Amino acid sequence: MSSSSQHTRITLASRPVGAPTNDNFLMVSGPIPQPENGQILLRTVYLSLDPYMRGRMSDADSYAKPVQIGETMVGGTVSLVEQSNNPDFKAGDWVLGYTGWQSHAISDGTGLHKLDGLVQPSLALGVLGMPGFTAYMGLLEIGQPKAGETVVVAAATGAVGSVVGQIAKLKGCRVVGIAGGAEKCRYAVEELGFDACIDHRSPSLSAELAAACPQGIDVYFENVGGAVFDAVLPLLNTSARVPLCGLIAQYNATELPNGPDRSPLLMRTLLTKRIRMQGFIIFDDYGHRYPKFLQTMGNWVSSGAIRHREDMVIGLENAPQAFAGLLEGRNFGKLIIQVSDIN
Amino acid sequence: MSSSSQHTRITLASRPVGAPTNDNFLMVSGPIPQPENGQILLRTVYLSLDPYMRGRMSDADSYAKPVQIGETMVGGTVSLVEQSNNPDFKAGDWVLGYTGWQSHAISDGTGLHKLDGLVQPSLALGVLGMPGFTAYMGLLEIGQPKAGETVVVAAATGAVGSVVGQIAKLKGCRVVGIAGGAEKCRYAVEELGFDACIDHRSPSLSAELAAACPQGIDVYFENVGGAVFDAVLPLLNTSARVPLCGLIAQYNATELPNGPDRSPLLMRTLLTKRIRMQGFIIFDDYGHRYPKFLQTMGNWVSSGAIRHREDMVIGLENAPQAFAGLLEGRNFGKLIIQVSDIN
Repeated sequence: MSSSSQHTRITLASRPVGAPTNDNFLMVSGPIPQPENGQILLRTVYLSLDPYMRGRMSDADSYAKPVQIGETMVGGTVSLVEQSNNPDFKAGDWVLGYTGWQSHAISDGTGLHKLDGLVQPSLALGVLGMPGFTAYMGLLEIGQPKAGETVVVAAATGAVGSVVGQIAKLKGCRVVGIAGGAEKCRYAVEELGFDACIDHRSPSLSAELAAACPQGIDVYFENVGGAVFDAVLPLLNTSARVPLCGLIAQYNATELPNGPDRSPLLMRTLLTKRIRMQGFIIFDDYGHRYPKFLQTMGNWVSSGAIRHREDMVIGLENAPQAFAGLLEGRNFGKLIIQVSDIN
Repeated sequence: MSSSSQHTRITLASRPVGAPTNDNFLMVSGPIPQPENGQILLRTVYLSLDPYMRGRMSDADSYAKPVQIGETMVGGTVSLVEQSNNPDFKAGDWVLGYTGWQSHAISDGTGLHKLDGLVQPSLALGVLGMPGFTAYMGLLEIGQPKAGETVVVAAATGAVGSVVGQIAKLKGCRVVGIAGGAEKCRYAVEELGFDACIDHRSPSLSAELAAACPQGIDVYFENVGGAVFDAVLPLLNTSARVPLCGLIAQYNATELPNGPDRSPLLMRTLLTKRIRMQGFIIFDDYGHRYPKFLQTMGNWVSSGAIRHREDMVIGLENAPQAFAGLLEGRNFGKLIIQVSDIN
């Protein structure tokens, strides 16, 4: 792989019904755009793929505008400055941006963050970026774990879940992960230091989770929903906290599940157990806390207190399939598309 | 009515299936007990009837132990000390206690609060007691209303809802009540000063509520659930707060409603709109704040800033029927049983 001699980008061709397929995307090529005065040309090196993008493909009411048909898919990126007509940037600078599923982008610098001194620039899309920040604020600010409490997190080896669990361990909690398959569970316990990890594919998920949480659950970091939440709900303790970060298990759903309607049961549980459930969107709600996060997490990562794992897929053309796999849990670690070479 | 020459009490005869009926209660009489050394004899003057008691009649898992079959029904009471063998109390003292559905009680003083100087002792069961405190803490601590925001409260003329709405008005909010019937709605607007009040029996509840909340809903104080919550959910704004205080519409339910299962829709809404929903039980969670509440609310009540209404039913024998009516919204104001004369 080298840098493309063309500008390639992946647009939304149609809105998925259920799981996204290759047909929902269209790869478009054209000449590489030239920066005007005050602008810079960015070459995308890393593109982050994250579950929230499924929401942007739908036109259902959500917290952010959907991507329109024909528009380039949105996404966080780490790029190299190739040409600069802007005094704030020079060729060779690494920048974090939100330039989407494409090989190049023109920018006037708005919204870009220079990544000076970052040994591994891709970390700005993972443990030191949006997913790590989501884990950090959601767990500490909403979850408020106390030493000795039991914290449960699903998608336990994913970009967010792996950081949630490790921070909870640093805070002295018992940490139980839920992940898909024996290999991920082994990794969560042996590499990340979780106290236990349950395979969500197990037919005895509820019983295994209950056995792994003999003192009940004080914090459940919700990024999955569905059957995992069903197993968690009866185990929540009085005064439990449920930071609601994502619901990946239901993003591809085309209709509500069959009844009975269990929302009264959910509300009754929140009431009788005095539980706080709170949705949050990391940058909208907590963006001002990012510098403090970066300092703290940077120390944890460089000292080895927090470990991380990347699932790197080479080539922009593989993004649609990799993204479909992400929604099915086929990735193992932070999913990143390497769009071009690092130099 | 005068004080009984017997000790009468109402026990739980059987657990209700659905709405409670007279058959679920049994009135038992016996001699008036005599206080031993260190004890006092209380004569109940006022008994508070509150929706939470429905939970105590069931043996379903909840935050408090159920009343056992044959036990006296629990409840908050305002009583007069008739005899005292305890130096901390003297005959004629008014006390707030939790002595339940009975004409007399023996106490060693534990858990009693003297009501010195309270002009109207029954207020200790309403606006200056548990319901008022529930409204105050739930709205201010969890709801955190800001001037200009829209606050919606159901059971708007009830012991809790009426106080929620009036405090929200004092904080500069637009307040929309939901109540059962035209008379209650008129009272909420004309007497309590709400900006609007919607009849929950209206077939166009959702449309009327939407029209009354042109800026959406920032705080929904939940004490009802059911169809009212269904109308509220789509109107909740980003960053809305939902203090979860009660779910009276579902207390008598014997099974979950028919499907589809809307709990994923509820969770999706909490997520995409970054909503905080939080259950709370007033004395367990906030008991230490009671003195401050009492001072603030006492001033509001004595200045006329907060108005209140009592629905007084005479005679302990009428408690079962009055309680069944409470669960159906047949009361109008704080429901209290006057068990004996005030002197």
